[in-house]
Amino acid sequence: MAYYQLDETKVEDYVKNLPSMKKIFSSFDNLETKEIGDGNLNYVYFITNKDKPEETIILKQAVPFLRCVGEDSPLSKDRMNFEIMALRKESELCPDLVPEIYHDDKEMALVIMQNLNKHKIMRGEMNLGKKFPKMPGHMATFLARTMFFSSDWYMTSKTENWDAMGVEKKERVKEFVNGELCTLTENYIFSYPFYDQETNEYSPDLPQDVIDMIQKDGALKVAAAELKYKFMNNAEAMLHGDLHTGSLMVNEEETFVIDPEFSFYGPAGFDVGLLMGNMLLAYIAQGYRQKQLGNDPKDYRAWVIDAIKEINNGFMKEYDALWKKHQDEVEYPYWNFEGGAEAFAQLRKNEIIRIFKDAVGIAGTVMIRRTLGLAKVSDIADIQDTKARAELDTEALKIGRQLLLNYKNIETIEEVVKIAQEVSPL
Amino acid sequence: MAYYQLDETKVEDYVKNLPSMKKIFSSFDNLETKEIGDGNLNYVYFITNKDKPEETIILKQAVPFLRCVGEDSPLSKDRMNFEIMALRKESELCPDLVPEIYHDDKEMALVIMQNLNKHKIMRGEMNLGKKFPKMPGHMATFLARTMFFSSDWYMTSKTENWDAMGVEKKERVKEFVNGELCTLTENYIFSYPFYDQETNEYSPDLPQDVIDMIQKDGALKVAAAELKYKFMNNAEAMLHGDLHTGSLMVNEEETFVIDPEFSFYGPAGFDVGLLMGNMLLAYIAQGYRQKQLGNDPKDYRAWVIDAIKEINNGFMKEYDALWKKHQDEVEYPYWNFEGGAEAFAQLRKNEIIRIFKDAVGIAGTVMIRRTLGLAKVSDIADIQDTKARAELDTEALKIGRQLLLNYKNIETIEEVVKIAQEVSPL
Repeated sequence: MAYYQLDETKVEDYVKNLPSMKKIFSSFDNLETKEIGDGNLNYVYFITNKDKPEETIILKQAVPFLRCVGEDSPLSKDRMNFEIMALRKESELCPDLVPEIYHDDKEMALVIMQNLNKHKIMRGEMNLGKKFPKMPGHMATFLARTMFFSSDWYMTSKTENWDAMGVEKKERVKEFVNGELCTLTENYIFSYPFYDQETNEYSPDLPQDVIDMIQKDGALKVAAAELKYKFMNNAEAMLHGDLHTGSLMVNEEETFVIDPEFSFYGPAGFDVGLLMGNMLLAYIAQGYRQKQLGNDPKDYRAWVIDAIKEINNGFMKEYDALWKKHQDEVEYPYWNFEGGAEAFAQLRKNEIIRIFKDAVGIAGTVMIRRTLGLAKVSDIADIQDTKARAELDTEALKIGRQLLLNYKNIETIEEVVKIAQEVSPL
Repeated sequence: MAYYQLDETKVEDYVKNLPSMKKIFSSFDNLETKEIGDGNLNYVYFITNKDKPEETIILKQAVPFLRCVGEDSPLSKDRMNFEIMALRKESELCPDLVPEIYHDDKEMALVIMQNLNKHKIMRGEMNLGKKFPKMPGHMATFLARTMFFSSDWYMTSKTENWDAMGVEKKERVKEFVNGELCTLTENYIFSYPFYDQETNEYSPDLPQDVIDMIQKDGALKVAAAELKYKFMNNAEAMLHGDLHTGSLMVNEEETFVIDPEFSFYGPAGFDVGLLMGNMLLAYIAQGYRQKQLGNDPKDYRAWVIDAIKEINNGFMKEYDALWKKHQDEVEYPYWNFEGGAEAFAQLRKNEIIRIFKDAVGIAGTVMIRRTLGLAKVSDIADIQDTKARAELDTEALKIGRQLLLNYKNIETIEEVVKIAQEVSPL
């Protein structure tokens, strides 16, 4: 079917004509459709049978421009292909952590999936002081499984045909070349925030010398440039590509990762670092926000720190365990010698620390770009008191700067937390 | 034209029917065709007008199997696409350092090019003790230009449309995914030599404890595994992929790089390291060979060492200069701040050292794989005295081991030479 852009009327006709939707909806007679309209890039519709509200879906369609900017800002609707490919792979690896896909249509650049109407966007919930005790474990699993199983450590040794090792992974990398969206990341995360670029937005009371602390620090800019280059070149694992706290739909029991349209093959530390950076921004923001809500900020912030530790330590532990289990299964003869088990353990340790170091650098970069760059996080940017906001922005920049300057020497999440708490004590 | 395999008769008919060949041959009446038959992978024909011997071409055709093993070992003839793409790009960047292409035909998996009949394969000439004073400078230029101009440092900042930065490079990476040939490299260079794999061949008098020094050293195997992973994942620059001294056609004045069918996007240190490793193997071999020829080995080996230094220092210097010149042209505003020039210089230095370190690791790996793996170098492997050969093999393994174990800390070619000369004094 040739592409056309849906609207609230057309979307119902589209859905009614799909055989697969008969499994979801017992009747199409009394559908209700709402476009939620809060996406930066796409159109998202909730479609519900008003007679049986449990019969509900979400339909997401890409349009050939950047929605938040307008039709003058073209962006290929092919990005939906990446979302579909990533969702399918993620649900194979972590079926309980991504929404169920009911239908996809590459021509129409759309996907129909489970409506997570018992879940809310985690960022907003964190701004209200809600805790999600199972989220850290879920995210550790999501990160470990998507990174390990898409990497060469798994993919090139899962076949008995050694001569074909590596070919399948390379074909995946090729399919996942997501040039347009990666270029957005390269510019808006790694470059623009680091000089006085026209798309940047600085919060009104943020002092110039704090901005200069980022934009005029040679060593910091070298580190950002090196990390950008890694991002552009190291195609090691299938990433979500935009894994912030606004890409998680949560409740007390469940965690769902949504919106993987930025998915591509990149450094395994990238998603880990995006989440780390966003959780650290929440840590900073909640010092102010929880006080405003009349809560004890210490209690909530201590949970945020615990969650950060659990996500990262859990990720490292699970990645290691998956790798070891895989080797036990395939028995790659390379490690069959006296001391081989220890050497293999050393390789795993080296690699996991390398991934973690990259993640720390990315976390620092994220904290900087969410403060000086175009796209903000509501945690801090929605605070109306501009003086208070500038103080939080300053904390974010100081922590981000420390992480980015020192990431090559930071091997544990405890060191990261120490740096954050030195700037912003609990 | 559908693919068919040429032979000495068919190849003449093929050539005669090409309009472009009328520019080369004034007459097709008295052609002489010879299949040289020394390729591992392909068929290579020399075709010459016997009446005017200066009218001569070389035609190289891929067959859908690994020639050196036979029809039972399938290998896609698509590899010729990679050779054609790489040759075209290399001749754009270094027109004097690759043969001129007269014709290519992807369907037929063949290329017709300049017959370098005034040049000889450098490996064989080095075994005879010949010096090529201009080769090191030529190779420094070849390495610097192919690495820099295919990398993101150049490709993502050469456009005024910053939003499109990076897209073209990613499309090139995609075109250059060369799964089958990369898998050969991964197995035969980075894996098999490091354990007792069935395709390995050990020279008859090589002691088991010397083999074990490689195959049972945990730290060394960890280093090899990490380097293999980098090779598989870091798509930074367009590589030749097989840049040994047998891929160079030389005379006193000129140097031509041939046979880039292993070309792909990989770590920029890879080609540098392949050449470094092969030159070090020549250094080792010539201690014995030049003595056998009645020459003073010191004199020739000193030239080899000088050539190694000149290639590597020249590469580093030229890469830096190309990058600086490019920035002067594009004036990327990222570096416009007080101290910006120094920071940019620091980035270049860091990156060039990173590339060099990778090259050292690769050189070590190459020395090991050419000694324990399937594919040997004639420099050492053609020596008939098996005792002498085993001693040279041992030197190669000792140097290779040192380089691979320590590559992350080796920043200059002088340190590499020192390690080589400690094991194998001039």
